[in-house]
Amino acid sequence: MPNTVSQKTIGRLSLYRRLLQALANKGVRYIYSHQIAVIASATAAQVRRDWMAIGYSGSPTKGYEVTELIDAIGKFLDSPKEQKVALVGIGNLGRAILIFFAGRRPKLNIVAAFDNDPYKINRVIHGCKCYHIDQLKTVSDETGIDVGIIAVPASEAQKAAENMVAAGIKGILNFAPTPLRVGNNVYVEDIDMTMSLEKVAFFARQGNFERNFTSGEYE
Amino acid sequence: MPNTVSQKTIGRLSLYRRLLQALANKGVRYIYSHQIAVIASATAAQVRRDWMAIGYSGSPTKGYEVTELIDAIGKFLDSPKEQKVALVGIGNLGRAILIFFAGRRPKLNIVAAFDNDPYKINRVIHGCKCYHIDQLKTVSDETGIDVGIIAVPASEAQKAAENMVAAGIKGILNFAPTPLRVGNNVYVEDIDMTMSLEKVAFFARQGNFERNFTSGEYE
Repeated sequence: MPNTVSQKTIGRLSLYRRLLQALANKGVRYIYSHQIAVIASATAAQVRRDWMAIGYSGSPTKGYEVTELIDAIGKFLDSPKEQKVALVGIGNLGRAILIFFAGRRPKLNIVAAFDNDPYKINRVIHGCKCYHIDQLKTVSDETGIDVGIIAVPASEAQKAAENMVAAGIKGILNFAPTPLRVGNNVYVEDIDMTMSLEKVAFFARQGNFERNFTSGEYE
Repeated sequence: MPNTVSQKTIGRLSLYRRLLQALANKGVRYIYSHQIAVIASATAAQVRRDWMAIGYSGSPTKGYEVTELIDAIGKFLDSPKEQKVALVGIGNLGRAILIFFAGRRPKLNIVAAFDNDPYKINRVIHGCKCYHIDQLKTVSDETGIDVGIIAVPASEAQKAAENMVAAGIKGILNFAPTPLRVGNNVYVEDIDMTMSLEKVAFFARQGNFERNFTSGEYE
């Protein structure tokens, strides 16, 4: 069943979980699909299809139980064991990424960072051990890394991606503003902050755009 | 004509420009649509439609002139005068954003940053003057800010967005992991780093996904 679930569904499940967690923290115990739809900028039908995709069926009479939903999403989305992440590029962006993701998900941790700057090698930066980029495969093999984050300049991104693939990494989050060419068995997700800001600036100026029902990532 | 151009076209134009700039720096003078298509993970037909959308028609016999294309994209994408950007949230993410965008585009600058931490007010952080969040409207009115970046926690994001809208801001780049509710005349682009990493981790583990012709942002 997991194999039939689309990238957009996975994105929405990740969002639902954080929204539900925020509600649980406020003491909310039950919620209807249409309420989730409103806060997640989706439709109620889509929300219900997403529950079906993860094999969750609650009693919708008084709404779904919030903590049960959070658990159901976690069971589907999270690895049963810890997934380890390697970061390549320990510049300003890389450091921000280390701080941002530290402890955010218990089973998804950046366990090693890589750079070619000798000053950074063998240091611990924001709780993360730093290695030379040439050690990527060795460290990956030893620790079982299967996710990579690229935070190097565009000119070095393709090489970083090839190093990751050679190290057996199967999924890459790419912050470099350039498309990566990798094999069909490697999943790549791009975050292009320059493109996003340029789009916002353009439409802020034009003041006229087709509005999606949902915006950006959530569509 | 600008009003008929889609969000995805604007995203591709931003990407083309950076790829073309990298080629120009290497001394490349001419390029064909199909070559741009390959490096931008698009189709040649799509690239040609994008040139038509911005009203550019070169002679495709020996390819398009790279610098001419860069200028044509700039004329379409950039504001004739500087566009000013406000950042709300000067934590680790906000600081990384300041460093990342500083000087990246001559006519698109973060001119003011806002926070509610008294320690940060009236300081200059990474070249950017910091103000109390209550001063957002005053500073925006004085300096003519029309773009905002949100880098606060999810729980504070909606309030930050409302402050921005009240200050006359027409486009928002939202890094907080929560959808914003704003009026139809405000353009919002979301960057959700947690969602992106969770998707990558999921598909790295499953090893089976529908591959888009282009990945992520560039589709």
